Amino acid sequence: MNLQAISYINKNSPGGDERMQVTEEGAKPNGKRSKLKRPIIDCDIHHYTGFDVLKPYLPRAYRELIHTYGKAMPGGMHFNGGVGGRMVDSLPPDGGPAGGNLEYMREHHLDPNNIHYGILTGESLGVQGTINFDYAAACCSAYNDYTIDHWLAKDSRLKGSIMIPKQDPIQAAKEIDRVGGRSDMVQVLVQNGAFFPYGNRYYYPIYEACVRHHLPFTIHVSGEGSGMNAQPTGAGHVTHYAEARAARPQVMMAHVASFIFEGVFERFPTLKVVLQEAGVFWIVPYLWRLDQDWKSLRVQTPWVQKKPSEYFRENFRVTTQPIEETPNLEVFKHMMDSLHAKETMMYCSDYPHWDYDSPLLALPRMEEELAHRVYYQNAADLYNLPPYQPEEKEERV
Amino acid sequence: MNLQAISYINKNSPGGDERMQVTEEGAKPNGKRSKLKRPIIDCDIHHYTGFDVLKPYLPRAYRELIHTYGKAMPGGMHFNGGVGGRMVDSLPPDGGPAGGNLEYMREHHLDPNNIHYGILTGESLGVQGTINFDYAAACCSAYNDYTIDHWLAKDSRLKGSIMIPKQDPIQAAKEIDRVGGRSDMVQVLVQNGAFFPYGNRYYYPIYEACVRHHLPFTIHVSGEGSGMNAQPTGAGHVTHYAEARAARPQVMMAHVASFIFEGVFERFPTLKVVLQEAGVFWIVPYLWRLDQDWKSLRVQTPWVQKKPSEYFRENFRVTTQPIEETPNLEVFKHMMDSLHAKETMMYCSDYPHWDYDSPLLALPRMEEELAHRVYYQNAADLYNLPPYQPEEKEERV
Repeated sequence: MNLQAISYINKNSPGGDERMQVTEEGAKPNGKRSKLKRPIIDCDIHHYTGFDVLKPYLPRAYRELIHTYGKAMPGGMHFNGGVGGRMVDSLPPDGGPAGGNLEYMREHHLDPNNIHYGILTGESLGVQGTINFDYAAACCSAYNDYTIDHWLAKDSRLKGSIMIPKQDPIQAAKEIDRVGGRSDMVQVLVQNGAFFPYGNRYYYPIYEACVRHHLPFTIHVSGEGSGMNAQPTGAGHVTHYAEARAARPQVMMAHVASFIFEGVFERFPTLKVVLQEAGVFWIVPYLWRLDQDWKSLRVQTPWVQKKPSEYFRENFRVTTQPIEETPNLEVFKHMMDSLHAKETMMYCSDYPHWDYDSPLLALPRMEEELAHRVYYQNAADLYNLPPYQPEEKEERV
Repeated sequence: MNLQAISYINKNSPGGDERMQVTEEGAKPNGKRSKLKRPIIDCDIHHYTGFDVLKPYLPRAYRELIHTYGKAMPGGMHFNGGVGGRMVDSLPPDGGPAGGNLEYMREHHLDPNNIHYGILTGESLGVQGTINFDYAAACCSAYNDYTIDHWLAKDSRLKGSIMIPKQDPIQAAKEIDRVGGRSDMVQVLVQNGAFFPYGNRYYYPIYEACVRHHLPFTIHVSGEGSGMNAQPTGAGHVTHYAEARAARPQVMMAHVASFIFEGVFERFPTLKVVLQEAGVFWIVPYLWRLDQDWKSLRVQTPWVQKKPSEYFRENFRVTTQPIEETPNLEVFKHMMDSLHAKETMMYCSDYPHWDYDSPLLALPRMEEELAHRVYYQNAADLYNLPPYQPEEKEERV
């Protein structure tokens, strides 16, 4: 193992709390992992879904095209963090990709952190930036079928996200209808990168299908400025990875304003939208601004009946990772209040990515009721999972 | 006058404090304007600079082209607020465009509000989105010469901004050299819309000229997604004006990260960058995020020597309008502290635009030292204007 890589180990990683041994020979669980007492629902776990595992789930025509021409998919445009974007200690000791081994994921993250439910998000969002809509749709179906067969069927704690070809809303709605009736598929997943903001009517067939199946629409950071998506900032492309990370909330802002001012929630009042991996506290001053402009300009969008911050509280949810560190606990509390975090915020880890947020270390201490809502109950409500019952015997497949 | 228009009158407008009479016949100063006691420097006053007044300052070749083909300039893509974007009571009673009559501007804004200095920003930023670089450069020179002749020469309180063809940095630097030696031209002005973020090395000739003449580089909201500029959000074009307004801080964020991570302030340590009209408090959680990512990823940009928030405090200034309303005064104070407002914040009105911020009404009450820095001294320091001396007799041309 590369010694340089060791220096990248995230303080929040499961290894960061001394339950791992990191040596020059590699990272290994040290066998002394005590289980976290608090019950956790983790809203963002990336199980490995590289092309090698997805290929058998693709139609033969695409398997042959990929064999001959490569995967033809928009990729990352910047360096990443950690080791190839992953925590060094997330690489399974027996080899293979991070997030690729369920046994190791259990041992490394699910069991010790008391993850009662984990929402799988995979690694395949890049497919939503490709201009070939049919190929994108085939890859999404492969992702969904592989995830059902190899992950959901093997551990009842794990729940799946429906990958859709967001660039083709009619086909996307068909895919939602195909697998959205399953109780273990709990949300529709799209990337942050887009050519139109998500409030645009172009996407309405997707929201009709979400509402039909009572599924949240989750926007996960990925693909900004890549493939057919718009440039990642309103000032064009950026140079460094830190700038690209800084662009993520910008893109998410565009989606939030679009949902509200296009009137999506007047047409689909029960639709829930989840914002994932773009940070959290940028939302607070952003809603101050939207509320002000709505007051002055609502004559131009008369269908927007409530203050933007009220739509936010009702129709949006936000996952925690990577949460901004506030200068002190008082400011943290003000931010949490303004965000109505007790209703809107849900914990997630982003396992196994390098900027993983451990439930032990990522968030400041909160009063118990708020903590339980953030770590468990808000996600249980949204994803229709059972409330936590301390005496309940845990079932595992 | 259109009765509908009356309902747009901004509560913050000089008419909003009952010093104006608004009747069905129109808006008129009512002659009862008492002068504000606090000395003010206003960092954003849009004097009218439409093509009718600029045309005599353009070379004949362009005058003829415009006569034949129209002005060929990227324009606004959305409805605006107020009456054509202006406060209804900013329209001079004798006719003509808002911001087009110095006498009326004195009576309506400068005198009663005790504006000791006002920084003129005009109405011509759209020129920076045109793909014809030479035409853009000619229009910028016309703007600068007209402003010097018709405004700076007539009231010594008024200071000018150097309009530059930002799309052609070499010509832009020449224009800065042409008029930047004048003590009444106090900053270089560009629009927020851009094809590259402003930290890109493409723009370095502009920063060399700024530093050579000790002039701040001011980015004013305008032209996002228009002409040759990138789409206004990282999710593409937006539909409604409220969304376009919400996009402004997003674009500004891209510029801030770009300046810092491209290392502009390591190369130009004395350069000051002013952020204008994109709001204020989005900066606070944005800097939390940049600081976190810098800590984790600074190995990728080793030339960035300090935390992003430290560069912000040293090298950026931000003007107030349109400041976000916080839920209470305690949150306001936290935001001001985190922003180091005592060093970084400068008042401006955006006169005569519809969302004008009056110095009487726009900001919460602050302790006196902070208030004086925000309303006067920070701008005096930045623009090299005399400190306020209460006994000083005011000079007017």
